[in-house]
Amino acid sequence: MNEFELIQNYFNWPLSDSSIELGAGDDAAIFNLDSGYQLVTSTDTLSEGVHFFKDDSPEDIAYKSLAVNLSDIAAMGATAKYFTLAITLPILDEIWLEQFSESLKETSEKYHVSLIGGDTTRGPLNITITMMGVVEKSKAIKRSGARNGDNIYVSGEIGDAALCLKKINEGQKPHKAELIKLNRPIPRLELGSALKGLASSCIDISDGLKQDLSHIIKASEVGAMIDIKDIPLSQSMIEHIKENDDWSLPLCGGDDYELCFTAPENFNSEIINIAEFCKIKITKIGVISDSKELEIKGYDGQGESYQHF
Amino acid sequence: MNEFELIQNYFNWPLSDSSIELGAGDDAAIFNLDSGYQLVTSTDTLSEGVHFFKDDSPEDIAYKSLAVNLSDIAAMGATAKYFTLAITLPILDEIWLEQFSESLKETSEKYHVSLIGGDTTRGPLNITITMMGVVEKSKAIKRSGARNGDNIYVSGEIGDAALCLKKINEGQKPHKAELIKLNRPIPRLELGSALKGLASSCIDISDGLKQDLSHIIKASEVGAMIDIKDIPLSQSMIEHIKENDDWSLPLCGGDDYELCFTAPENFNSEIINIAEFCKIKITKIGVISDSKELEIKGYDGQGESYQHF
Repeated sequence: MNEFELIQNYFNWPLSDSSIELGAGDDAAIFNLDSGYQLVTSTDTLSEGVHFFKDDSPEDIAYKSLAVNLSDIAAMGATAKYFTLAITLPILDEIWLEQFSESLKETSEKYHVSLIGGDTTRGPLNITITMMGVVEKSKAIKRSGARNGDNIYVSGEIGDAALCLKKINEGQKPHKAELIKLNRPIPRLELGSALKGLASSCIDISDGLKQDLSHIIKASEVGAMIDIKDIPLSQSMIEHIKENDDWSLPLCGGDDYELCFTAPENFNSEIINIAEFCKIKITKIGVISDSKELEIKGYDGQGESYQHF
Repeated sequence: MNEFELIQNYFNWPLSDSSIELGAGDDAAIFNLDSGYQLVTSTDTLSEGVHFFKDDSPEDIAYKSLAVNLSDIAAMGATAKYFTLAITLPILDEIWLEQFSESLKETSEKYHVSLIGGDTTRGPLNITITMMGVVEKSKAIKRSGARNGDNIYVSGEIGDAALCLKKINEGQKPHKAELIKLNRPIPRLELGSALKGLASSCIDISDGLKQDLSHIIKASEVGAMIDIKDIPLSQSMIEHIKENDDWSLPLCGGDDYELCFTAPENFNSEIINIAEFCKIKITKIGVISDSKELEIKGYDGQGESYQHF
């Protein structure tokens, strides 16, 4: 099978987005942007042994590859639209590819994004997706807008993906619900979009709350004070902390893909409404300060966020 | 060094393109598109052992990663503008990274493209670039526009990169000029742009003339007749063919990154002018037919174009 047959067989879906003039199958894809909008683009790679295990299901790998990229677009408050897929495959395993492509297609339909091109290469499994989205001009939520006195919020519950990974690494068998937290993170697109005009800054938590909140305060040239007792935790995580006195997972574990954002206090009631509307738990975990430091009340500083190298 | 320090140290260059509102360093980049333009986007991966050798210089790898993506944008007649870089690295080799990033920066400046984001991951060396460009609405040159009677042209000389690769694989030491053909292909951006409104179809020759011209005829639902004696060849290639009676390299060898395009006969004199203006050799190698077959006069059919799997 050559590359073109491979793409034809596994990655050639009908496109329903009328802004796309030309999808996969030429040297490049072509699409239109409505006036008044900006393009928002982000790239994330998933690599075997780092982001997933050799034996993870192709369905989960496809889902997560798309979800982590959608999460970046969500963190900008943008609407995800198009993506390219560069996939490096060790062998041509048709069953694997069938399952991977089926899941990618299903996930892309769920989130209304169109595959507009890509590349296939032979080598150790490596999946790079570049996601493109659109946002009304000047409406994107950047990391740099947090101001002294703003509240700090997070969506969902933090640390469960890291707890699941820890269990796997220690040879335990996680529950299905725990595996879902690791393998099927939900990109918070609806929430990100709803926060436009309210949130002063936003980031998705991929490398751990501590590190990702640090990016906000660095980009915004402010500080932050949070309290560990305010961090929203699942029952499993509460038990883990009780047993081990270990806060490193919710603070430094990665792969949450929840949003961490800031907003002025006078938007608090609107944010509560958004939580209800989006059916997502949103928790205030602290406030922005002018100290330029991240202070975490109740935390002794143990544990480090995910380091790529 | 964490990912952010790595990006800060090696991939954080000042951006001079005023259409970029936000470059690397947030969840996603943001840029504006002038009205009347469309976005053109393409992705290509370079993987160790497939697109380059383990010992190839980081400068060459960086150059080629960018050049092959620029070549796709050139083949659309578009102007390259922005790119994202997803790089998977086996180890943190600061000397390697320094040389890679210096060459990437230099090449991006040469071709006026801006690095607007990316991702770094640990694993076997793998470089995926997603290139974004712009083109005036409806002006992109697609593969699908070739019509019966159109002339078929190629730029430059064909097969030298494959000849160089063959020599390396056979343990010979190629000349410097031959290595340049393999490692430093020139993206034909100026030519592609000049062909807008003249060329009826265009593709860049990455997988071999035979296979890439086949994509044009398939997309255009036409046929093609070319004659091997018209294919532009370097002196080394002429000697190789004389000695070995082997036409497989210019026909089926990949990595040329020259443009293969079609245009009606009445544009022939304009195309000759463009060749002069762009200082690029352009050669007519055949005509489009209505047979739906690719006929290659003087070629017995030996050799297959590059198959990815």
